Amino acid sequence: MAKSSRGKSRTKSTKSRAATRAPAKSKTRKVVDRARKYVYAFGGGRADGTAAMKNLLGGKGANLAEMAGMGLPVPPGFTISTEVCTYYYANRRTYPAELKKQVAQHLARIESLVGRNFGDPVRPLLVSVRSGARASMPGMMDTVLNLGLNDATVQGLIADSKNERFAWDSYRRFVQMYGDVVLGLKPEDPKQADPFEEILERKKQARGAKLDTELTAADLKELVAEFKAVIKEKKGTDFPSDPHQQLWGAIGAVFGSWQNARAITYRRLYGIPDEWGTAVNVQAMVFGNLGDDCATGVGFSRDPATGERRFYGDFLVNAQGEDVVAGIRTPQPLSKAAAIEDAAAQGIAEADRLPALEEIMPDLYKQLTKIAAQLEKHYRDMQDIEFTIERGRLYMLQTRNGKRTAHAAIKIAVDMVKERLIDRDTAIARVEPSSIDQLLHPGLDPKAEKTLIAKGVAASPGAVAGEVVFSADDAEAAAASSKKVILVRVETSPEDIHGMSVAEGILTARGGKASHAAVVARGMGKSCVAGCSDLDIRYDGEYFLARGSIRVGRGEWITLDGSTGEVFLGKVPTVQTEGESGDFAILMSWADKARRLKIRTNADTPKDAAVARKFGAEGIGLCRTEHMFFEAERIDVVREMILAADTDGRERALAKLLPMQRGDFIAIFREMNGLPVTIRLLDPPLHEFLPQTDADTNELAAKIGVDAGTLRARRDQLHELNPMLGLRGCRLGIVYPEIYRMQVRAIMEAACTVAREGAKVIPEIMIPLVGHVNELARLRKSSDELSRAIIAETGQKVAYTIGTMVEVPRACLTADEIAREAEFFSFGTNDLTQMGFGLSRDDAATFLPQYVESGILPGDPFASLDEGGIGQLLEMGVRKGRGARAGLKIGICGEHGGDPSSIAFCHRIGLDYVSCSPYRVPVARLAAAQAAIAGTRKKP
Amino acid sequence: MAKSSRGKSRTKSTKSRAATRAPAKSKTRKVVDRARKYVYAFGGGRADGTAAMKNLLGGKGANLAEMAGMGLPVPPGFTISTEVCTYYYANRRTYPAELKKQVAQHLARIESLVGRNFGDPVRPLLVSVRSGARASMPGMMDTVLNLGLNDATVQGLIADSKNERFAWDSYRRFVQMYGDVVLGLKPEDPKQADPFEEILERKKQARGAKLDTELTAADLKELVAEFKAVIKEKKGTDFPSDPHQQLWGAIGAVFGSWQNARAITYRRLYGIPDEWGTAVNVQAMVFGNLGDDCATGVGFSRDPATGERRFYGDFLVNAQGEDVVAGIRTPQPLSKAAAIEDAAAQGIAEADRLPALEEIMPDLYKQLTKIAAQLEKHYRDMQDIEFTIERGRLYMLQTRNGKRTAHAAIKIAVDMVKERLIDRDTAIARVEPSSIDQLLHPGLDPKAEKTLIAKGVAASPGAVAGEVVFSADDAEAAAASSKKVILVRVETSPEDIHGMSVAEGILTARGGKASHAAVVARGMGKSCVAGCSDLDIRYDGEYFLARGSIRVGRGEWITLDGSTGEVFLGKVPTVQTEGESGDFAILMSWADKARRLKIRTNADTPKDAAVARKFGAEGIGLCRTEHMFFEAERIDVVREMILAADTDGRERALAKLLPMQRGDFIAIFREMNGLPVTIRLLDPPLHEFLPQTDADTNELAAKIGVDAGTLRARRDQLHELNPMLGLRGCRLGIVYPEIYRMQVRAIMEAACTVAREGAKVIPEIMIPLVGHVNELARLRKSSDELSRAIIAETGQKVAYTIGTMVEVPRACLTADEIAREAEFFSFGTNDLTQMGFGLSRDDAATFLPQYVESGILPGDPFASLDEGGIGQLLEMGVRKGRGARAGLKIGICGEHGGDPSSIAFCHRIGLDYVSCSPYRVPVARLAAAQAAIAGTRKKP
Repeated sequence: MAKSSRGKSRTKSTKSRAATRAPAKSKTRKVVDRARKYVYAFGGGRADGTAAMKNLLGGKGANLAEMAGMGLPVPPGFTISTEVCTYYYANRRTYPAELKKQVAQHLARIESLVGRNFGDPVRPLLVSVRSGARASMPGMMDTVLNLGLNDATVQGLIADSKNERFAWDSYRRFVQMYGDVVLGLKPEDPKQADPFEEILERKKQARGAKLDTELTAADLKELVAEFKAVIKEKKGTDFPSDPHQQLWGAIGAVFGSWQNARAITYRRLYGIPDEWGTAVNVQAMVFGNLGDDCATGVGFSRDPATGERRFYGDFLVNAQGEDVVAGIRTPQPLSKAAAIEDAAAQGIAEADRLPALEEIMPDLYKQLTKIAAQLEKHYRDMQDIEFTIERGRLYMLQTRNGKRTAHAAIKIAVDMVKERLIDRDTAIARVEPSSIDQLLHPGLDPKAEKTLIAKGVAASPGAVAGEVVFSADDAEAAAASSKKVILVRVETSPEDIHGMSVAEGILTARGGKASHAAVVARGMGKSCVAGCSDLDIRYDGEYFLARGSIRVGRGEWITLDGSTGEVFLGKVPTVQTEGESGDFAILMSWADKARRLKIRTNADTPKDAAVARKFGAEGIGLCRTEHMFFEAERIDVVREMILAADTDGRERALAKLLPMQRGDFIAIFREMNGLPVTIRLLDPPLHEFLPQTDADTNELAAKIGVDAGTLRARRDQLHELNPMLGLRGCRLGIVYPEIYRMQVRAIMEAACTVAREGAKVIPEIMIPLVGHVNELARLRKSSDELSRAIIAETGQKVAYTIGTMVEVPRACLTADEIAREAEFFSFGTNDLTQMGFGLSRDDAATFLPQYVESGILPGDPFASLDEGGIGQLLEMGVRKGRGARAGLKIGICGEHGGDPSSIAFCHRIGLDYVSCSPYRVPVARLAAAQAAIAGTRKKP
Repeated sequence: MAKSSRGKSRTKSTKSRAATRAPAKSKTRKVVDRARKYVYAFGGGRADGTAAMKNLLGGKGANLAEMAGMGLPVPPGFTISTEVCTYYYANRRTYPAELKKQVAQHLARIESLVGRNFGDPVRPLLVSVRSGARASMPGMMDTVLNLGLNDATVQGLIADSKNERFAWDSYRRFVQMYGDVVLGLKPEDPKQADPFEEILERKKQARGAKLDTELTAADLKELVAEFKAVIKEKKGTDFPSDPHQQLWGAIGAVFGSWQNARAITYRRLYGIPDEWGTAVNVQAMVFGNLGDDCATGVGFSRDPATGERRFYGDFLVNAQGEDVVAGIRTPQPLSKAAAIEDAAAQGIAEADRLPALEEIMPDLYKQLTKIAAQLEKHYRDMQDIEFTIERGRLYMLQTRNGKRTAHAAIKIAVDMVKERLIDRDTAIARVEPSSIDQLLHPGLDPKAEKTLIAKGVAASPGAVAGEVVFSADDAEAAAASSKKVILVRVETSPEDIHGMSVAEGILTARGGKASHAAVVARGMGKSCVAGCSDLDIRYDGEYFLARGSIRVGRGEWITLDGSTGEVFLGKVPTVQTEGESGDFAILMSWADKARRLKIRTNADTPKDAAVARKFGAEGIGLCRTEHMFFEAERIDVVREMILAADTDGRERALAKLLPMQRGDFIAIFREMNGLPVTIRLLDPPLHEFLPQTDADTNELAAKIGVDAGTLRARRDQLHELNPMLGLRGCRLGIVYPEIYRMQVRAIMEAACTVAREGAKVIPEIMIPLVGHVNELARLRKSSDELSRAIIAETGQKVAYTIGTMVEVPRACLTADEIAREAEFFSFGTNDLTQMGFGLSRDDAATFLPQYVESGILPGDPFASLDEGGIGQLLEMGVRKGRGARAGLKIGICGEHGGDPSSIAFCHRIGLDYVSCSPYRVPVARLAAAQAAIAGTRKKP
């Protein structure tokens, strides 16, 4: 189905592309072609373009055109379209013949609108030149401001502004920007000094000035000369004084920047096609720093932190945009109410506070709020605007959809539906699924003082503080005396589970989002910062060094923020968040109606199951029985089982484990009354359960009364070179059939017990690591026979199913054969990625980060499913599986089940459900809804 | 292409099946249907069937019919067709209504032909009942002879044979066989005693007899009664005295045996469909043990050991077929010439030797040789015949294509082409490729005395003897003093390479055909017995225990036969074999003309390259540069490189390695003048090169002047949980670009040097472990730039190509993308199998043997390619790869490149070449020719 609908959309897009291309191709239209439009005007009450023309005008150009078209006060300008960029690269960096004329015409239009002329020494027109691609690209060319200044026009600016210092400062800034950006004097390596900054610094030293503002007009004039001299020296040519030469230099620099190394890397990382190209925006300058009747600021049509419906923003009187950003002066709130609030919060007396824009320029404030409201209604989304007031006149410089916190995003989306601005589907699509994670976990108090000592991978969200411990046993001991601890390890292994389960959070020096520590932490809902390579952990000395010098010993407090990957010294206060209520609950209820995918959870304990159910899980997609094996009182019995010399010995140990496992399943089935529970039979290699060091082995030997030599020999015998590809999963079930027999018995006896209590039990027995249908056929048969026998024994009917985890590439290749024996499939995409990519997630830290940084891989394939490669295996599995067994239930239980883009993929290929860790369930519900909506929208 | 041709053949076979089925389906043919033929007569100068009717009559029945149809003296009989077996199972173990009548009619025909009647107490007809399926199935029912005897008919046999003892012995044997086979009294467990054998044993003790033949007629008569009593006791019913009841009992037993456990397991193992069913052959008995005018024997139309064209075989006067097999009496040669030769060889005086059949029954001998020649001409293959002479009359009981040694197979095939009996393609197809391995390696002297002490996996062929050593260092030391040694290890690792390279052979306790020891040994052309689990190796005591009790210490001699997996005590003499000359050379020249696949070799040294070229290799398909790294004087430089703290340190060590590698490549290029050489850049994880134990690490530290702690830390840092999926292959090339740079430089400088000498150098640089096209794109670009630079530097043109090893499943899935960057593909099917199956070949020994034995897998996927699963990845790689780059050169360089069935698969999917270890090259050439011939024949 997914295929055919994609096929359709392809046909359609080909058609529409053909339609667009037709006129250009037609020879009879050659005359029209020659007069092809490359330049689009905006401002002066009209615009050639609209917001819908982003492909042609870029994001910035399209929004400027839209504002101008709405009649808003936009300084006039024009956009040179992305087609010119395409032409430029297709024609050895030359322009279409007609471009020059069109630019000249549009420049003349600006001149007439603002009543200034380009290069006029009396009333000079100054412009800004900015790049603007379809998608925002931070790696692109910077802005050039004040273009048009030279030794002659600066005099006009002095006369015009009546401010000599302002004029020379503008000139000095222009020469610097032009030299850096257009002439390429800005060093590639950020550690190298900018030649202009060096001169500026020397000048300030010579003048005893601390701030740029302390330099006089004369100083600045000297700087202009010195800047020009350095250009002459470095480039061998004079700084161009002709404004037209300046303009074409800047235009060429923008187009040239499309193929600079940073931009290429950025495009590769974000999958932006080279063919898109960039547009160039040329716009008349307006100044917010000509005096006290001038100002510049930014505003949001609603509060981006809370989502409240109130105009919100900051401004500075007599300042340029960059001053707001530079943070030298503190910007003031726009509204009086906010100004009063802020002052109160900072303990400033009402009399001492700075006035709001609402107070000093009430009319302009009113005009601004009106425009903000108008833009919001127009774009049907919260707007982030930039404005400048030049001598009492308001100019709009930019509008775009505003960034917001998760909390605000939800409130705004829900409010806008109530206000009938948007529909529910749009509201759902507006909230970034991964952002809502922060609503479910405690966060750091934003007001608290913090000392950042290291940064790693944000592996499992939540902010927590605790005393440092370096071993699972210490964690357990400390927790026993009610201490809060952070378990710090180079990396964790299944042996550390007991320590992890009692720790507040886990911090590791190695491994990424898919490392053992990360996966287990997310499963437990614990905070985790992983792969923190800044740490040098010294187990022997019981301390770690952060960044080579900060020494943190056992028992000292640290704080982790698992949502950002940050590690802080000491105990940073945290704030609890709201959970699923209010607007969040409303939005989620809409999402639940919109989605087709079911959301299950990966839960190994009744506690996890309860948490997940609270978060809306519709079943357990993966219950890993091995985690139960690690619990303190059991591990020795498990070890006894593993170390048994023969089947009888194993059976004896398994008989002890049976009631324990049955008890686990009873509790889980009770918790999940009415919902399906997929239980995976034992999966990991047995040696994971054994002690690793000789000392631990000897200790265990003494404890369970086995000869230490025998124990070490058995441990070594179980050692594997590549355990991931060794004796594990269904292979264990075939070599030691008694293990799976015990587990199936525990599951079915528990199911019958809970069913007899009146609950609805839906057990799904999952056989892991199947690579060949015969493995499944054999284990299914024996499990089926045993299950029937138990149902017959107990006389209690329970509808169970037996399926398999599809995690070996060969299982996907032969999914048709396997489906004949499987009542359900669950994709184990962690292992599928590991095997399909030949990539051990435990060992990938040595090269995977470099792969992602340098653009070899678009991202960590353990975080987001590799759709182009591993995704093919999933598609094959679905197609072949359902081909052999119509309506086969198929889900995913790998880590990808909680990743929004992977969830969208799962939706598209027709899975029935995704399963993720309990705290990811709401994220998955929202992502599934968005995928369904995107699918609906793509149809017709 | 492969797909469409398969599609076609499917259509065709459906059609032909429909055509066959049509008459049976037609309702108007109901009358004919009712009279459907289920029983086919043979003998008496005619037959209902032919050799072509194996599907209906089974192999034995079809050949009996063929011989009868040729007019040869076959005792008359009939075959109940396999259709009855199918009917039997489709209809709850009942027979078609008309079967009884047809059997009766055909029984009557036998009676009239031999002039005896079934159940007649005066001239009783006795018959044999045998199963006979389409394919030979050793797990099926045994034969029942002498059926038709009872207390009445035995008297007729006595009168007829004039030999009371013979008659009672026949009766006694019949009751025993019937009880064992038809009544099921033979115990399933071979360790349990047969009840009849127990009685027989007691009787012999009571009579003081050592041999059965010492029992009298009266004893045998008593035994018949006692045998019947035990049947009555165990089965609760009397032994059936009615011959018809006996006959139907035996027929039912044959059909029933089709579904016994042994037969089911056998079919699963050999992929024989359940639907085939078995036929039943009922044939009049003839006796070779009625007196001195009787005999029985076997013959071959040519000598099965040498292939010489002479009638060859053994016989016994006055004996039954089973006596020849039992070996109680020594059979005599059929021909006088052979009898004289044998006597001379055994030092028997001409006067004392036993006469040949040619001497005592010259007419019958002449008749027999004529028949043998006739059969050989008829079947166009060497025949293995069974005959019986009853009272001066010759009967043919069986003919089939005879088994033969590899040497004989080649001679017979070549001779038959010369005799115009067969064409060259048939000759090529007649020789089992894997059998010719024995012609290339020394074998054990067949006449030598041997003491077998253990048996493992036949991992690398060749028979060798040497003193036992337990470490690579000891091997090296012993070899330095010219001792021949066998390196005995639990398993080997790359650290053992220096020891393996000087040892005569390698014996390991763990690992299979694809273990490190096996792969390296085959690559080196060394004999290897791997996975010999009978061994208990005690490194500390420097000895091993074979089978728990045989103690072999360091310095003691043992002998390995790598072709059989056998291990012998002491020094067993070996014999050198002929190599590629004479008939072998002729056959191989035909094969070379017939094949389409090119055959290359996996060779890491000039020596290997020379050997392979001698064996007909047409290039090097895999030159593993890492093996060069392990050489004694280099390993420390390699370690210095790995342990370097930074790039500079690595570069310094690499600079030392450069001339060494360049020297290697120069020697190899010279050796391979005119042929392509594929060189794989460094592939294994770096820690493989480092010492494993702390002691070794400390020793190295002292040697290279590095702090031992630092060294251990670096070693631990490089440690990986799953090294196969870790930092290796092209990942090394990306993380440490200087390593590949050095290697590419070494290759290209060597190529330019040798090209300047006038040789033709065709280097193919292979980048391993590519999973994503970007990996290859980056490394190809840098390697390409460097190669061009070196060509420019040296001014010597060399046509090189850069391609990739396709060994990660994702590379197959995205082969279209990867092909855009690759000038060739080489499938690394070892890793592809490991990753695709999720199966570490180093760790699979704990379950893989059980998988194969119990039929979960049809065989070891590392020995023969898993066509149904991993094969799909190869097909995908070929289809997508050539789809993106027409004519892309594709080969295979995994272990499968030397496996005949995998070679056939490679031919079918259109690969250009296979590459295998030097000693497998002739095997591969022959297998490739057979694949090409099979492909041609399949076409219409």
